[in-house]
Amino acid sequence: MTHADTPPGFTDILAAAARIAPHAHATPVLRSRALDAIAGCELHFKCENLQRAGAFKFRGACNAVFSLDEAALARGIVTQSSGNHGAAVALAGRLRDARVTVVAPRSTPKVKLAAIEGYGARIVPCDTTQAARDAATAQVLAETGGELVHPFNDARVIAGQGTATLELLSASPGLDAVVAPVSGGGLLSGTAIAAHGIDPGIEVFGAEPTGACDAHDSLASGTRITGRVPDTVCDGLRAELGTLTFPILREHVREVLLADDAAAVEAMRLLWTRMKLVVEPSGAMPLAVVLAHRERFAGRRVGIILSGGNVDPDALPSLFATLGDAA
Amino acid sequence: MTHADTPPGFTDILAAAARIAPHAHATPVLRSRALDAIAGCELHFKCENLQRAGAFKFRGACNAVFSLDEAALARGIVTQSSGNHGAAVALAGRLRDARVTVVAPRSTPKVKLAAIEGYGARIVPCDTTQAARDAATAQVLAETGGELVHPFNDARVIAGQGTATLELLSASPGLDAVVAPVSGGGLLSGTAIAAHGIDPGIEVFGAEPTGACDAHDSLASGTRITGRVPDTVCDGLRAELGTLTFPILREHVREVLLADDAAAVEAMRLLWTRMKLVVEPSGAMPLAVVLAHRERFAGRRVGIILSGGNVDPDALPSLFATLGDAA
Repeated sequence: MTHADTPPGFTDILAAAARIAPHAHATPVLRSRALDAIAGCELHFKCENLQRAGAFKFRGACNAVFSLDEAALARGIVTQSSGNHGAAVALAGRLRDARVTVVAPRSTPKVKLAAIEGYGARIVPCDTTQAARDAATAQVLAETGGELVHPFNDARVIAGQGTATLELLSASPGLDAVVAPVSGGGLLSGTAIAAHGIDPGIEVFGAEPTGACDAHDSLASGTRITGRVPDTVCDGLRAELGTLTFPILREHVREVLLADDAAAVEAMRLLWTRMKLVVEPSGAMPLAVVLAHRERFAGRRVGIILSGGNVDPDALPSLFATLGDAA
Repeated sequence: MTHADTPPGFTDILAAAARIAPHAHATPVLRSRALDAIAGCELHFKCENLQRAGAFKFRGACNAVFSLDEAALARGIVTQSSGNHGAAVALAGRLRDARVTVVAPRSTPKVKLAAIEGYGARIVPCDTTQAARDAATAQVLAETGGELVHPFNDARVIAGQGTATLELLSASPGLDAVVAPVSGGGLLSGTAIAAHGIDPGIEVFGAEPTGACDAHDSLASGTRITGRVPDTVCDGLRAELGTLTFPILREHVREVLLADDAAAVEAMRLLWTRMKLVVEPSGAMPLAVVLAHRERFAGRRVGIILSGGNVDPDALPSLFATLGDAA
């Protein structure tokens, strides 16, 4: 549970855009004729891998942290994160000289833990399950009296994430569809509210790994699924939907499309070789699902949220090994 | 020798910008607070790794190919290249439905040869020395009667390369210095003419690997040095200055600064981890020299030409091995 536990509206996203403008990058929207030819549709890539701290997460964290009054700020900021959100809150907190504590699973990639510490935040390690994360977070909140900035179940965070889609649709007006990865659902919720605030006819898709398909199954069944153990190289897509994001996705999202880990890594490789962009496996998932479900997108104008680029160069050989004989 | 063997002027660069605008990307200029802090100066990165065919080379090739009349075009286009220029000419030629032949040393990276063939050009392999390249090129020209588009000793090519700096200085007005890699000198010549056409006070630096420092030594000695055997992982920086580019660099370039291969790969790694950009070792050389000569740039506003991003993911482990104990 969080403050701001009613869904944000389109105007909250407009307000977030104004609030974060002095701090966040307006990232470029890039095109690739080569990838258009491979995908059989017209792709517009919103490069949130080029965002500060290397992921879209800075938008939501920045909006939440800069929404806090001085009294709340003085109590310190607490969050839980498997990486990018933690770094984003740490950076946003540093910009306001606030103490930040990040509860992080021990499985978090080293490059992401180093980024969190590099921005001056304290890390509290925990086990990987959502229950363990929540218990550790609750304990830190009780001890510090701090302000929770939840990674996705927070209207301020969702509104911030939606600002990427405002920029995307400003750079590339008239898109038929937008595809964003889904984990806890904050990015996909913000994407959907922003897109439909501009044009209710835009189809919004989620992209999720087959090894962590709880959002797909939740939307298909109409029940929010919790408690599964995810199995995917997409370390940013292992959370489950929140109480706030699930209803937003039910209202706004056309479908969550699935692709496997090999498809994510192959998409990551295509983004490297064809667009010269470093994108982490989670961030490559939207391209992976477009290529895996090309009949859904044939000939259409499609926005792709490249959500983050925090992948360790040293991890590349083992990621490419995921491709096996397909490489 | 080429057509157009008098140096281009600033107005030729303006004309090139108009000529290539329908075909080339206006690449973004990106910033990184993290790299500014590391370098101790303000860096403005012109992302030519995001250019079509993955390098600035498309600008010059496009300007040369679109300058040809139909009669010349019908005779076909011939060039020599260790990679990026060949792919760029192949692509530009394809846009005009012209036959393209590329003379390429057998040492050319596979990813670059594949790109040339992917754009439909014919490859004629040769030995690595400049003499061998020139001999093979002369033979193809004699056989085909084709039009030579030399990779750097050609005023049309130099003018095209200069358009990147027009865009850089439009996005980031008032830079104190611009740094570009130097191989045959086409990019650096165009960079210098463009920069000084806008503001003669801008200091223009070349960036060159210590293992292929012929441009540095040529400018220092006042004599164009030829015939050396380069030893560097920067496969795009193994050519020697041309008769056309050498006098331009003598007139315009403040100094050619050197850094070793390990510094180039370390800069490439920083661009990966801090900016999420895939840049080949040759393209990372300007950042490498800024970091190796930081007293020259302290506190100043510096433009960096990230010249290309054509590096094979599978080559990364062996490149990082260059770092040795420094990694």
